[in-house]
Amino acid sequence: MVIFGATGDLTRRKLIPGLFSLFGKGLLPQRFAVVGSSRTEWSSEDFRAEMREAVQIFAPEDMDEAVWSEFAGHLYYLPGNATEQADYEELRDFLAELEGGPANRLYYLATAPRFFAPIVTRLGEAGMAQEAAQEAAQEAAQEMDGTAAWRRVVIEKPFGHDLASAQTLNQLVHTVFAEHQIYRIDHYLAKETVQNILVFRFANTMFEPIWNRNYIDHVQITVAEAVDVGHRAGYYDQSGVLRDMFQNHLIQILAFVGMEPPASFQADAIRDEKAKVLKAIRPLSPAEITAQTVRAQYDGYCTADGVAADSQTATYAALQLYIDNWRWRGVPFYLRSGKALATKTSEVIVQFKEPPHMMFTIPHDQPIPANYLALCLQPHEGFHQRIELKEPGREVKLRSVDMDFHYEEVFHPNSVPEAYETLLHNALEGDATLFTRSDGIEAAWQVIDSVLQGWQTAAAPPLATYAPGSWGPAEADRLLGKNGRSWRHGCVDE
Amino acid sequence: MVIFGATGDLTRRKLIPGLFSLFGKGLLPQRFAVVGSSRTEWSSEDFRAEMREAVQIFAPEDMDEAVWSEFAGHLYYLPGNATEQADYEELRDFLAELEGGPANRLYYLATAPRFFAPIVTRLGEAGMAQEAAQEAAQEAAQEMDGTAAWRRVVIEKPFGHDLASAQTLNQLVHTVFAEHQIYRIDHYLAKETVQNILVFRFANTMFEPIWNRNYIDHVQITVAEAVDVGHRAGYYDQSGVLRDMFQNHLIQILAFVGMEPPASFQADAIRDEKAKVLKAIRPLSPAEITAQTVRAQYDGYCTADGVAADSQTATYAALQLYIDNWRWRGVPFYLRSGKALATKTSEVIVQFKEPPHMMFTIPHDQPIPANYLALCLQPHEGFHQRIELKEPGREVKLRSVDMDFHYEEVFHPNSVPEAYETLLHNALEGDATLFTRSDGIEAAWQVIDSVLQGWQTAAAPPLATYAPGSWGPAEADRLLGKNGRSWRHGCVDE
Repeated sequence: MVIFGATGDLTRRKLIPGLFSLFGKGLLPQRFAVVGSSRTEWSSEDFRAEMREAVQIFAPEDMDEAVWSEFAGHLYYLPGNATEQADYEELRDFLAELEGGPANRLYYLATAPRFFAPIVTRLGEAGMAQEAAQEAAQEAAQEMDGTAAWRRVVIEKPFGHDLASAQTLNQLVHTVFAEHQIYRIDHYLAKETVQNILVFRFANTMFEPIWNRNYIDHVQITVAEAVDVGHRAGYYDQSGVLRDMFQNHLIQILAFVGMEPPASFQADAIRDEKAKVLKAIRPLSPAEITAQTVRAQYDGYCTADGVAADSQTATYAALQLYIDNWRWRGVPFYLRSGKALATKTSEVIVQFKEPPHMMFTIPHDQPIPANYLALCLQPHEGFHQRIELKEPGREVKLRSVDMDFHYEEVFHPNSVPEAYETLLHNALEGDATLFTRSDGIEAAWQVIDSVLQGWQTAAAPPLATYAPGSWGPAEADRLLGKNGRSWRHGCVDE
Repeated sequence: MVIFGATGDLTRRKLIPGLFSLFGKGLLPQRFAVVGSSRTEWSSEDFRAEMREAVQIFAPEDMDEAVWSEFAGHLYYLPGNATEQADYEELRDFLAELEGGPANRLYYLATAPRFFAPIVTRLGEAGMAQEAAQEAAQEAAQEMDGTAAWRRVVIEKPFGHDLASAQTLNQLVHTVFAEHQIYRIDHYLAKETVQNILVFRFANTMFEPIWNRNYIDHVQITVAEAVDVGHRAGYYDQSGVLRDMFQNHLIQILAFVGMEPPASFQADAIRDEKAKVLKAIRPLSPAEITAQTVRAQYDGYCTADGVAADSQTATYAALQLYIDNWRWRGVPFYLRSGKALATKTSEVIVQFKEPPHMMFTIPHDQPIPANYLALCLQPHEGFHQRIELKEPGREVKLRSVDMDFHYEEVFHPNSVPEAYETLLHNALEGDATLFTRSDGIEAAWQVIDSVLQGWQTAAAPPLATYAPGSWGPAEADRLLGKNGRSWRHGCVDE
């Protein structure tokens, strides 16, 4: 495994702690090496020392001196410039010597996005992307206990900054790697609960029959952050909330909530269905850009270091989308995300329709209560089902209560492996379920691009403002309110 | 209000404590009198003293000396023989004097069942059942703040001991009272959670769409008692579990679980639907009596005082019934009840079918898990929904968990009024929802009668035995087991 960007934050915080944890659990191959690459002139010894410190800071509970010593022996470092072809040839020779024969290789691109293309190109030019031919692979497989001598590349997010750049990057990567070799990270998808959405939907029979336009009034997807842009202000001002959160998080959640049942839990069966549902999202017309999108900025954003004083970047957005297929036609999907909001929460609300006939007496000034299901993704994973019961007493009076399940009540918190540990293990095992495929990533960009472009035209809604610590701008409430709906907080107290 | 059987257990335990509680809450009319009647030669003073003691024993938390003194002033007693016409005329005159004008009257038959017919007949002969004519009623209504001078009769259970006797009793009662005057007690129906079944089913939209043969595999209704027959052995040996529990409890629960949505929560709308679903229960053929019913007796029953040494009375029964209508055709309803079982619990299991396609890997030796819903009626009221989730960890492994709601976690226990308090209040208010109508009671007897009669023929299954403290005979497990099903305990630990 080669890590490009080995001196960076991700390597320290996630990759090395994740690998070390896998090693501790005996989940890495018998023979393996991790080679760090970056411009910094470290030695392998420096790398080991730095990574040891990183594990102590970011995964202190895993630190075991004896295990670390063993693990550290597998770590190497080779300085190199990502854009310098000669350095790749040096790396290639270094790896060949280390491997001493046919070996599998995972290239992990943990660098800034602008280096993704150059690294892939150089890897191709150095002949480092080529998998062993069928015959050679079988031979290698025998030597390596049944695994072929594969080459895989893990590409960090963000994958492009709009549809065109994502397509360009996909085209470029495809000149070097085949799709089955490419693992595009979207760290949200590794979350237990997002996988659990699929199990929840398709291992149970109580939900799927009512998971459609006949019974569902609308769907809400909220990914709220309490933090403001902080030290990322400079980067953030270039991307904004749509690129930062919608393209990779909210749209992916929408796909898992809205997709048809795949025939199997295999990566491509799931990714086929994901791509299908994303492609069915109706593009927004200019009139819809005005009426169905909200963009906003929290008060004080423009004073942050690295932000232009007159920045128009949205730190909050709310979208009303439609999926034009047999299952969802006419059911609005409301997506919202923002920084500096009241609390941190990621949740999906599946709001069912009202009972067709209410035989119980409801006070005149109250709406007929309707069930909803809350899929709580973060920080307290679980499921809440809002139902109506009779309040005890002589009169028949309805009361809304929750039937709920919380992961933390049943499972030990440590039983959920850290997201990157799972991702690394899956990439090593060749399980691409949690990684996005080119069509999925482009379909997501297609949706976001239409909004991004719309916001550059006269159809753009005015940039609203909201107070830090609030639930966002009044415009977002009006977006639902004009249809008699309102945002729910199904997983956190309002 | 006249209580026949005023010296009996029910009056002490339930009726007077219930009335006293209503009085304390200001739910009785301004002017009211309770007249006790029985053969015992008590005075009104004796009655007041006895009832004071009863409240102290059975509802000590309600006892307030000042309130009791006020309440006791409304209590009267007149000795009388239930079969002696002259005593009714005396009672009539006593009431007329007490009332001093048009008044509403509730006759409560809290006697042994053999007195129901004589009392009703004598009330009729004494002219005490007649409601005020339309004109007189309106006049009376004005005097009495809008209520008409009604006459109602509350008839305790059991109402008949088979279909023929229930029909005879209905015919007799109908010669004296109109159906709207008759309130037949089935104390189970007053339970909060049975009312709640209706709210659960019809105030929510998540359950009704899947509440049918397309999604439900089968339904289980369990009413288990931990106690044995005890001092009721003599009575019990004459009735057995079918009359004691099935006719009035399990069949009524089945009706509420299986009925179509009524158009309103009015008494007759609900009772129409109840009668409809009970009439749709398929009568059991002799072959079905053999194959679909289980009768059993717990070890040691025949040694109980008052039981014949060779008694064939069933203390446990399990039935497999079918409702032949559009909603339920082909869905078995398994009903079981017995004495001396492992624990006391009343619950309904709605077992859903397996997912049509299982895309997740299940160990070969395990069945595909299927959802069920447990409606827990007693002793811990609530709802459990058994669903499948992903166990945290790298592999996709299913785990069955409960989403649940317990009344006691949300509502104060005292907020649930005692069953008889509700029943008395409803009868006084003229709300017959919780009382059974003649067609409902006869339809329930029709089902039970076919089994009772079948058990008298050669088609009867052999009388099985079971150990006290067990979950019943092995035959009951085989009843479900032959279809690959098994009894569940959704509300209590197994």
